[in-house]
Amino acid sequence: MELYLIRHGIAQEREIGLADETRSLTDKGRDKTRQVAQRLSELGVRFDVLLTSPLLRSQQTAKILHDCKLSQNIAESAHLAPDGSIHDWLDWFKKQQYPQQTQLALVGHQPNLGQWAEILVWGEDRAKLFLKKAGIIGIALPETDSPIGQSQLFWLTAPKFLL
Amino acid sequence: MELYLIRHGIAQEREIGLADETRSLTDKGRDKTRQVAQRLSELGVRFDVLLTSPLLRSQQTAKILHDCKLSQNIAESAHLAPDGSIHDWLDWFKKQQYPQQTQLALVGHQPNLGQWAEILVWGEDRAKLFLKKAGIIGIALPETDSPIGQSQLFWLTAPKFLL
Repeated sequence: MELYLIRHGIAQEREIGLADETRSLTDKGRDKTRQVAQRLSELGVRFDVLLTSPLLRSQQTAKILHDCKLSQNIAESAHLAPDGSIHDWLDWFKKQQYPQQTQLALVGHQPNLGQWAEILVWGEDRAKLFLKKAGIIGIALPETDSPIGQSQLFWLTAPKFLL
Repeated sequence: MELYLIRHGIAQEREIGLADETRSLTDKGRDKTRQVAQRLSELGVRFDVLLTSPLLRSQQTAKILHDCKLSQNIAESAHLAPDGSIHDWLDWFKKQQYPQQTQLALVGHQPNLGQWAEILVWGEDRAKLFLKKAGIIGIALPETDSPIGQSQLFWLTAPKFLL
């Protein structure tokens, strides 16, 4: 199974009176995310399932990926919010029993996605993966057992290496 | 400083009577490596120094990168051969005292390049990085101290995510 971790695009800065959950993609963020999505589509990337964090900037990013035909299925997962836990997500994930050939994409936040990738690949988080906004990580999960520390990294890219 | 680790393109299979050092890129390997090099050039990737393993398939790969104007400087490093050691290479590297903004590319072999990347980023090799032929790894080295376990991974891609 292939797992793709995608960081939301460039969003409004934090400001007093603006709830973090409602920070929106900026015009630039929307444009660049759309360019990335179109490029991924040209490269033949497709997801069977696209899960997004419930925060607006991630929802908007997932919607753009969906509009660019990268996935027909889109759903929200509270585990992908900034305070989400990979262990809770993995409990949920195991119950889904996705077929082995599933291509699964998660749209969310930093530092979470980089941490999750490191935990899946090396078993622990050391903050050594540099994931830019609208960047993507690709991880091959093992066929059996827990994926923690058992997965392989096959892709890590920033938008600038796609566009 | 940015360090790029590039695996040679598709080469002749091993066969009795053919020394490993003289295995050449195949026509397909040459074509795909040239496409990757042209794409890297379009993306604005440039190297100040390009070092290659002395084995023919790496020399040929480095020559293609050079012909596509990715680097004006090309040199051989015996440390990049399949039996080379990252520690010997780091001893050599420290003596060069490259300026901090140097973009340095190494053309070589698997499993070495993936192992070197993991040693630089995580301090040890666990064979968790998937580097395809003509694929590329990008690592940001720290400004001070030894880069072992202190570097950051910012890029890992196979040709299929570039072409």
